[in-house]
Amino acid sequence: MQAPSDSTLHHVLIIGCGFGGLEAARALNRPGVRITLIDRSNHHLFQPLLYQVATAGLSAPSIAAPIRHMLRKQRNVTVLMAEASSIAKAQRQVVLADGQRIAYDSLIVASGATHSYFGRDEWAAHAPGLKTLADAFQLRAKLLSAFEQAELSNDEAERAALLNFIVIGAGPTGVEMAGTLAEIARHTLRNEFRRIDPAQAQVMLLEGSERVLQAFKPELSEKARQQLQGLGVQVQTGARVVAIDAKGVEIEQAGERRRIAARTVVWAAGVAASPLGRALEVPLDRAGRVIVDGSLNIPDHAEVFVIGDLAAAQSHEKDGSTKPVPGVSPGAKQMGRHAAQSILARLAGSAPPPPFRYLDYGALATIGRKAAVADVGRWQFSGYFAWLFWLFVHIYFLIGFRNRLVVLMDWAWAYWSFQRYARVYAETAAPAQADKV
Amino acid sequence: MQAPSDSTLHHVLIIGCGFGGLEAARALNRPGVRITLIDRSNHHLFQPLLYQVATAGLSAPSIAAPIRHMLRKQRNVTVLMAEASSIAKAQRQVVLADGQRIAYDSLIVASGATHSYFGRDEWAAHAPGLKTLADAFQLRAKLLSAFEQAELSNDEAERAALLNFIVIGAGPTGVEMAGTLAEIARHTLRNEFRRIDPAQAQVMLLEGSERVLQAFKPELSEKARQQLQGLGVQVQTGARVVAIDAKGVEIEQAGERRRIAARTVVWAAGVAASPLGRALEVPLDRAGRVIVDGSLNIPDHAEVFVIGDLAAAQSHEKDGSTKPVPGVSPGAKQMGRHAAQSILARLAGSAPPPPFRYLDYGALATIGRKAAVADVGRWQFSGYFAWLFWLFVHIYFLIGFRNRLVVLMDWAWAYWSFQRYARVYAETAAPAQADKV
Repeated sequence: MQAPSDSTLHHVLIIGCGFGGLEAARALNRPGVRITLIDRSNHHLFQPLLYQVATAGLSAPSIAAPIRHMLRKQRNVTVLMAEASSIAKAQRQVVLADGQRIAYDSLIVASGATHSYFGRDEWAAHAPGLKTLADAFQLRAKLLSAFEQAELSNDEAERAALLNFIVIGAGPTGVEMAGTLAEIARHTLRNEFRRIDPAQAQVMLLEGSERVLQAFKPELSEKARQQLQGLGVQVQTGARVVAIDAKGVEIEQAGERRRIAARTVVWAAGVAASPLGRALEVPLDRAGRVIVDGSLNIPDHAEVFVIGDLAAAQSHEKDGSTKPVPGVSPGAKQMGRHAAQSILARLAGSAPPPPFRYLDYGALATIGRKAAVADVGRWQFSGYFAWLFWLFVHIYFLIGFRNRLVVLMDWAWAYWSFQRYARVYAETAAPAQADKV
Repeated sequence: MQAPSDSTLHHVLIIGCGFGGLEAARALNRPGVRITLIDRSNHHLFQPLLYQVATAGLSAPSIAAPIRHMLRKQRNVTVLMAEASSIAKAQRQVVLADGQRIAYDSLIVASGATHSYFGRDEWAAHAPGLKTLADAFQLRAKLLSAFEQAELSNDEAERAALLNFIVIGAGPTGVEMAGTLAEIARHTLRNEFRRIDPAQAQVMLLEGSERVLQAFKPELSEKARQQLQGLGVQVQTGARVVAIDAKGVEIEQAGERRRIAARTVVWAAGVAASPLGRALEVPLDRAGRVIVDGSLNIPDHAEVFVIGDLAAAQSHEKDGSTKPVPGVSPGAKQMGRHAAQSILARLAGSAPPPPFRYLDYGALATIGRKAAVADVGRWQFSGYFAWLFWLFVHIYFLIGFRNRLVVLMDWAWAYWSFQRYARVYAETAAPAQADKV
């Protein structure tokens, strides 16, 4: 237990244990370095599968692992469950929410992103987003209790509103949520209700731009739309949300306004960088992300790195051009590794690594059962094969052998039975329900 | 979808889907009967393993299944997720919390039990109990965050208090919790902390009476005490709790009062019957349970049955004597079956079943890894073999093939790795933590 507190070692403080922070910590498993890793939660979350927890397909521990357990063998890391509230760059200290100050030699800020309601924070209460396990539990309770309340209700209009589900934002998360919701209504819940028919549920996917999955090529967007429609999802593009309240959503589409009654609205539209970006007091981009240089440093502070979703980073291409790094997990991981390499090079007195270059392995999005799109280098494909590919890539990148095995089992079982294993929720997770029943 | 609403059928309303209510519903899968089953939550819970969810050994869906999924093939059942607020015996109606009234021909009240703080309800905030999934999540967050906060704290006394765990009540749940907590501190968390040594944690089990596991024979109580001590639990019997607050517990033992500082206190002492018992306006026993006759009926209402933990029922022995039915799951199941048989006999115009007799299969309690006690008819045994027996009995009675397989896998993995699979908790589940960090 000597190493982590030995003050002769170079102390790297990492804020946030998402894909970027975790990768940086692992890459810094070298002599001469000690690390303090702080995170607000006790677990690293495999966020690409969070929608599966929200839609009751997986239990939370299958996609989350205790940070300190993952890093228990790396003796140079101290993990603290804490929240950073500010950063004193001049003193090289981070201030925690409880007032404690932690001094650093190098700092890696990897605190990620949160939902953004584009200034309409009052929408949050009616249209929860999906970033944390708590969000997923809340959504799971909301989705499942909508069907329960519909079965209980004697009011026809109320029932219809309860069986209307709206997903706002047709990025990967929105598309996954909408596709899975349609599957739940049509297949999972079949034969389980006596007063309502769950298959009557309407799932609507609203997107402000002209196509779903903007980050993909237009042909794949079109495939995705077709697959969504095949699953029973109503896809509405060019639909700008202008209001959300407890009774539904108001949209503007082709110059016309209309209301859609719905009790369950899911927010998958906006992402904003973590507020910690502002604490650095450096230039931010419009999304609140910290503008970093080719070393992922902020101006005038070569000891401060910003990585992952919080960073507005450029990929320095071979031809000398630059292009923005997308906010995906491979990007965060690569930045984590790059920042660690810079620190190790400085300690060794060797040449710094070349400016950050993002290696693009392609993009994948699943839509539902047997439906997905893949854009991998020269190959674009969709449908059953893309879905299998999506499935194996996600199991491969999951943390831990046990989780891989269990998730594979759960999915095999779900595939044949159409069932979703985790269709339970704790009573307190559904405050809306508590008012009602 | 005709049967469940056909008003010519005899309508049985069942309140509560624990072991008793579920068994009654299944036994009433007969022509001529329609059933409405109401429960406050969407799942049937395998309560004997709830402490495993609280101590991060299992994920919630492994021990809970959606009620309507379990009963989907039984076409004469309508499941409603609702809370019964009162019972109008004279009109044969149950009033739901939302005001809806449901008429019945026969009523089976099986709403179970809740914690009792013996009139000291202010203790609930400091010493949560364990009855629902929400309770288990809250406890899991509390237990795990105590270690996290201790690692973060720089105050020696605070650290010591954070690493003191007190379990109040040495019935099966208290014994299981204390044994498992000791195992977590000594084995599961080993090597994961840098500033504290989790093995320094103190686990204390407080019991007001003179021995642990009162329901077992004294020799087995003594074995259980030895096994607990072997796991590192401090067992304090004859210790009456006189105060609980945010800083710890005050006890009276051998005429002397003393305070024990602790941040984490678990309540496993008192159980009180569900408040719905009072709504029946019939004689209750001291624990608030409804006194029922040999048909499990209340006075003057042969159409109203009370079963499970809510019932103060007698077992009518062969020799004509009676003895109280213990509050265990086989008792609830047998009562559920008996009530169903009475209803079916009346509908058929045949002779009623003989007065309720409880078939005692024995008692089992686990203490921790390789430690348990068993009292099965003429056999009393403890230790490794009792633990294996406990394990297989519990897996056998779990709901669903999938859950049996997953729990067996989780336990095998935990056995060899000393790890606990579900050591994650959602941020909002720990309000105490949110204040702190």
